[in-house]
Amino acid sequence: MTTTTSLQSDALRELYADWASIIATTPGLTTRLTRSLFDEWHQPTREPEDVTYREETIGGVPGIWTLPTGADTSRVLLYTHGGGFVVGSAASHRKLAAHVAKQLGVTAFVLDYRRAPEHPHPAQVEDGVAAFTGLVERGVDPAAVTTIGDSAGGNLAVAIPLALRERGRPLPGGVIALSPWLDMENSGETLVTNDATDALISVPILESMIAAVLAEGRIDPRTPLANPLHADFAGFPRLYVDAGAAESLLADATRLVERARAAGVDATLSVADGMQHVFPCLAGNAPEADEEIARIARWYRA
Amino acid sequence: MTTTTSLQSDALRELYADWASIIATTPGLTTRLTRSLFDEWHQPTREPEDVTYREETIGGVPGIWTLPTGADTSRVLLYTHGGGFVVGSAASHRKLAAHVAKQLGVTAFVLDYRRAPEHPHPAQVEDGVAAFTGLVERGVDPAAVTTIGDSAGGNLAVAIPLALRERGRPLPGGVIALSPWLDMENSGETLVTNDATDALISVPILESMIAAVLAEGRIDPRTPLANPLHADFAGFPRLYVDAGAAESLLADATRLVERARAAGVDATLSVADGMQHVFPCLAGNAPEADEEIARIARWYRA
Repeated sequence: MTTTTSLQSDALRELYADWASIIATTPGLTTRLTRSLFDEWHQPTREPEDVTYREETIGGVPGIWTLPTGADTSRVLLYTHGGGFVVGSAASHRKLAAHVAKQLGVTAFVLDYRRAPEHPHPAQVEDGVAAFTGLVERGVDPAAVTTIGDSAGGNLAVAIPLALRERGRPLPGGVIALSPWLDMENSGETLVTNDATDALISVPILESMIAAVLAEGRIDPRTPLANPLHADFAGFPRLYVDAGAAESLLADATRLVERARAAGVDATLSVADGMQHVFPCLAGNAPEADEEIARIARWYRA
Repeated sequence: MTTTTSLQSDALRELYADWASIIATTPGLTTRLTRSLFDEWHQPTREPEDVTYREETIGGVPGIWTLPTGADTSRVLLYTHGGGFVVGSAASHRKLAAHVAKQLGVTAFVLDYRRAPEHPHPAQVEDGVAAFTGLVERGVDPAAVTTIGDSAGGNLAVAIPLALRERGRPLPGGVIALSPWLDMENSGETLVTNDATDALISVPILESMIAAVLAEGRIDPRTPLANPLHADFAGFPRLYVDAGAAESLLADATRLVERARAAGVDATLSVADGMQHVFPCLAGNAPEADEEIARIARWYRA
C-alpha cells in the first residue's frame, strides 16, 4: 500500500531521523544535550499569527499562556508537552499549543512541569494537578478546562483527570491526547510492525525514558497514573485521541480508546495515514496537521 | 572594585558558563549540536506580552516579524541575531527583538540569514542587504528602518549600511549594535583584561567562528564588510552601541564608537557595569536589561 503524504510533512520525518541518528551515533550524549536537541521540536511548527503570550506560574507550576486574539478567556487548554517526561518544554510546544488554542477559540496554558530523572513519577502528574487546581482557584470552571498533551504529555493529559478523580475533585470537561505514550511495558504491537516507518521512536529510546520516569525500576510500570492503560476509566471525561498511522506508538492510542470505550467513555480516535509521531506539530506548514487540528476543533465544539 | 548586579542577571552568566563548559568538555561537539545548544539563547528572555508574530520571506530571506500591539507599522527594526555567524537563529532571538520593538513602539523583522561555514562571508551581509532592499521595495521608507543586531549580528547591523553605501543606495535611519563582535583579528585588549569575568567568550571560540565565516583563512580578516573596525564611517547613520563591562568583546564596542565618532558620526556608547555579552537578552527578567532597552528607546526617539 502506498500512502501519499504532503511534501511539507517530510520536514518532521527528517527532523526525527536526524535526532535518532544523533542519539544513535553520539557517544555519551548527556540528558543536558538531549534536552537542547529536543527543544528543536518547535521548528516544524509555523509561528501562528494573532496570538500573544504571557509567562506565569499557576499552582506553583511555571508555564506560558498562549492568548489568541478574540479567544474565550473563560476556557482553557491545560497543555502538557511531550518528550518522554525527560525532555521537551513549554518553549518547544508553545507554537503547537497556540495553533490548537486558536482553532478552538480558547486560551492555553503550557506547563513547564518537573522532568525526570531529577523528578520521577508522580512529580509530573502532581504538577498537572496543581496547575489544574490553581486554575480552578482563580475562578475557572473545571468543566471549561480541557487537559491536552502529546506523547508523554498525552499520558499526563489522561493521568491528570485520573488523579483528580481519585481525590474526589471536579474533572476537566474533556481530554485530548495527541500520539499519547502510555505503555511503560513496551508491549504494543506497533513497536514492531511500524518500526520501519517510525523515524524517531524505538524501544531503546523508550527504555531509557521509562528508566528515568520510573526511577530505574523502583516504580511499577503498571502503576495506573504512570501507565493509564492499566487505569479504570469509569466516569472519565469525553476523550479525543489521535496518532499517525506510521508511528510505533499507534497501539497506545488505539488501546487507550478501546479501554475508555469499554468503560462507557465517549472516545474519538483519529489516525492519519502515513503520519509520524505528534504530526500536529506541523501546524501552519503541512495540510495534514491543519486538517487534524480542524477535526479537533469540530470535536471540541460538538 | 565590587560591582553589584541583580540576582536575576545571574541566569545569563550561568547559561553562558554551562555552554562554555559543554564546549570545552564535549569531544567532537558538532556544529549541528552547537546550533541546538545556542538556540537556548532565548531562555533568559521572558515572553513579552502583547506581541504577535508572523513568519515571512522578504527579499528571499526568511524571518519572523514581531508585531507589538499598537506599534507604528511604518517603522521597522531589521534584526540580525548573534552566534558568531555560525549558530543562533530568528527563533533564538525572537523574544529579544520583540522586547526592543515593543519599547520602541515599532515592528521588527528577525532574519534567518545564511550561516557559516556552509555560507562564508559575505553571504550574511548579502542577506541583510537583500532583506533591507525587499522592505524598501514594499514601500518602507529607508530612513524608517533601523538595522540592529547583537554580537555577530551587531557586526551585520553595521556592515549592512556600509554595503548599501558602497552601492550608492539609501541608508537606514539608524544603527543599533548590542555587544557587537567586529574584530576578526582578536586584537582587543578586553579579550585579556576581561577574560576572567566573561563567562562565554574566549579566543579559542572566536578563532573557530572566524575560521568558519572567513572560509578557513581564504578571506582577509581586515575586509571592511567582515571587520567594520577597518571600515570608513563617513556618512554613516546615527549609531547606538552597548556592551557589558564584564565582557571580553567590550573593546569592540568602544573601538567602533571611537572610529565612528572620528568620522563625524553621531555615536552613543552605553556600557553596563558587571554585565555579560548581549545582556539585553535578560529582557523582562533582569532590571539591567530593561533599563538598557529603555535607554535605547530614549535614543531612538530623540
